[in-house]
Amino acid sequence: MSDLLETVRGLAKKTDSKILLVVLDGIGGLPRTPGGETELASAKTPNLDALAQRSELGQLELVGAGITPGSGPGHLSLFGYDPLKYVVGRGALSAVGIGVKLNSGDVAVRGNFATLGEGRTVLDRRAGRPSDEKNAEIVARLRQAIPDIEGTPVEIYTESEHRFVVVFRAAGEPLGASISDVDPQATGVAPLTATAHDAASEKTAALVNAFVSRAEETLRAEEQVNGVLFRGYSDVPHFPSFDDAYQLRAACIASYPMYKGLASLVGMDVLTVEGQEDALEGKVAALTENWDKYDFFYFHVKKTDSTGEDGDFDAKVKKIELFDALLPQLLALQPDVLAIAGDHSTPSRLASHSWHPVPFLIHSEYGRKDVTSRYTEEEAQKGSLGLRRGTDLMPLLMAHALKLNKYGA
Amino acid sequence: MSDLLETVRGLAKKTDSKILLVVLDGIGGLPRTPGGETELASAKTPNLDALAQRSELGQLELVGAGITPGSGPGHLSLFGYDPLKYVVGRGALSAVGIGVKLNSGDVAVRGNFATLGEGRTVLDRRAGRPSDEKNAEIVARLRQAIPDIEGTPVEIYTESEHRFVVVFRAAGEPLGASISDVDPQATGVAPLTATAHDAASEKTAALVNAFVSRAEETLRAEEQVNGVLFRGYSDVPHFPSFDDAYQLRAACIASYPMYKGLASLVGMDVLTVEGQEDALEGKVAALTENWDKYDFFYFHVKKTDSTGEDGDFDAKVKKIELFDALLPQLLALQPDVLAIAGDHSTPSRLASHSWHPVPFLIHSEYGRKDVTSRYTEEEAQKGSLGLRRGTDLMPLLMAHALKLNKYGA
Repeated sequence: MSDLLETVRGLAKKTDSKILLVVLDGIGGLPRTPGGETELASAKTPNLDALAQRSELGQLELVGAGITPGSGPGHLSLFGYDPLKYVVGRGALSAVGIGVKLNSGDVAVRGNFATLGEGRTVLDRRAGRPSDEKNAEIVARLRQAIPDIEGTPVEIYTESEHRFVVVFRAAGEPLGASISDVDPQATGVAPLTATAHDAASEKTAALVNAFVSRAEETLRAEEQVNGVLFRGYSDVPHFPSFDDAYQLRAACIASYPMYKGLASLVGMDVLTVEGQEDALEGKVAALTENWDKYDFFYFHVKKTDSTGEDGDFDAKVKKIELFDALLPQLLALQPDVLAIAGDHSTPSRLASHSWHPVPFLIHSEYGRKDVTSRYTEEEAQKGSLGLRRGTDLMPLLMAHALKLNKYGA
Repeated sequence: MSDLLETVRGLAKKTDSKILLVVLDGIGGLPRTPGGETELASAKTPNLDALAQRSELGQLELVGAGITPGSGPGHLSLFGYDPLKYVVGRGALSAVGIGVKLNSGDVAVRGNFATLGEGRTVLDRRAGRPSDEKNAEIVARLRQAIPDIEGTPVEIYTESEHRFVVVFRAAGEPLGASISDVDPQATGVAPLTATAHDAASEKTAALVNAFVSRAEETLRAEEQVNGVLFRGYSDVPHFPSFDDAYQLRAACIASYPMYKGLASLVGMDVLTVEGQEDALEGKVAALTENWDKYDFFYFHVKKTDSTGEDGDFDAKVKKIELFDALLPQLLALQPDVLAIAGDHSTPSRLASHSWHPVPFLIHSEYGRKDVTSRYTEEEAQKGSLGLRRGTDLMPLLMAHALKLNKYGA
């Protein structure tokens, strides 16, 4: 397939129109029991219903038929980057998500603090889920103990609870990221020794193993937080930025590190959101305050996914209804193009991401009429926008915003 | 487009779930007269109807828009191998289908015995459809007369009636398979001289032309079976096997050589089926007996195609009804995922394969609701699975069987 992104990049133009892309994380679902209604169909959503009746609907397959997308690939696809071509590791996402700037050649790694017992046996892969404060205290000690490893600068950052991020800064040769996990993903066994899958990663594997030893040494007196486990190593990918690809000044409105990190990787400004957790009111405030400053907004709602991941059908329904209650405030801003989509499905029944297509909706002055009456999976199946790859969304939004020149004479 | 098969291969995992893929050969049809009902819609299929109401439907385009698939490409697509990338000639299929092991560099060719008249004019392209016994007798004479051609070993095999297969074994350099047909596909003209389309195939063209001369010399005293026509040359393709690509222990349940050959090329075990021709009861018996031994079954039904090829609308309807009567025995095995599809359409009105998409159905615990009420072309158009490439089927089946890990974090 020729890359649609490259074509769009050649056609994009700056205009005053505004695009608002709402991503309801993990929005697609399944019936609670086969043949029944999904979470979206069960929710009472008068505002979404009314919007659907004035919009066009369709379904997006984010990566490909049958493929269950992680949040990274799902979002990249929504942003127009083929997720099979642009691969971002979780380590890079986590690092960027907490505001760390990565350079070409660096490697970012996700770590878990763990509790080790006799003979380095893993007793708890999450070290009893320490508080963020405890995490920061441990990180401070590690920073002091491991400022570098044989000349390679090492940076250590708190993520939250048991999670932290290590960045190995390339000093000379770029560091490879193709190495095996330290995390055995099981208790009762010792942490694994990292091994390199290619020559470029041999130095990185040695750095990781040295880090593990020195961290255990440093933390030996700790009862719970006395070990580290690593998985999700990533080098730094190169994206055509949103500005370059779409001529868009783009802003991200999200609360969770990974989504902010991803948006920042593609060149969006990450706006400050006040409030705890999903902070929907804080997000609306950030959107409203910055409305005049950008022409593209990525507005992320997390809890539709978290509740699905918890397998809590009713809670997911409630989170959908919460968003519905918020929708009039978004409409009041009168975006030229409003899209609602998901980065993947998270059916409560599976309590995990799934491969099922997500319903999506585009509202603009230039939409055709279609027969859909609600924003649900079943209605989206009938929608005029059809079943599409996720990477089709951005070109459609750009077109509806009249931001694309004609292709060819 | 990056290859979805490669992505699936990286995500596939072994589980206990079982997939049953029923291929109703040539199942897609056309109305007997424009505006009427197709063969599927005309058939009385209470079991299929009930299944469709509990399943998701869609349409598969096996090769691409407007492209009429041969049985080889159609099946490859169903098995997840892009038929534009994995090209298997009919010769290789025929050879493997009768149990001949092909090696890299060999070329397999399909032949027809023909009746030649004055001046080598083709009088009958099928030599009056000789019996299999007559075929075998002729093949024995040719084997004796042509054990090799200038040092290249030649093997000759009976297929059935007028059909036979020749394998030229590479002795040193690999043989190319890009040569023109000997079969003029018309009577009243002489057989054509094979010419090479590339340098690698020049030796093969010479071998083919020498074979034709020596065969005519050997058979000169025969009245009916006195000439040979060739088309369908193929070298030996390399597939990631079903085991390698999908982590599946796969079994083929089919009666006709080509389908068994194809399944064996992609690494399926070919099960023994008792009975003549389509042997539906024998196939069900083979399926039932081997149910515990495999996690993927390819179950082939041939007569839906043969009747379409004969242009016999009513006979095709009957064969569909025969399958419908059998369906409860398949359902009784309780496959985790049951799919019904075709390798191409064979509308009776065209009396040949056609380019029309085939309806397909997936039944699993993890399907969404859709509006379809029957397994027909018209209902499939409304199905939630949409209009897709044939290569999407296997990833979907793997996903529904929960045999694929998540892509990315």
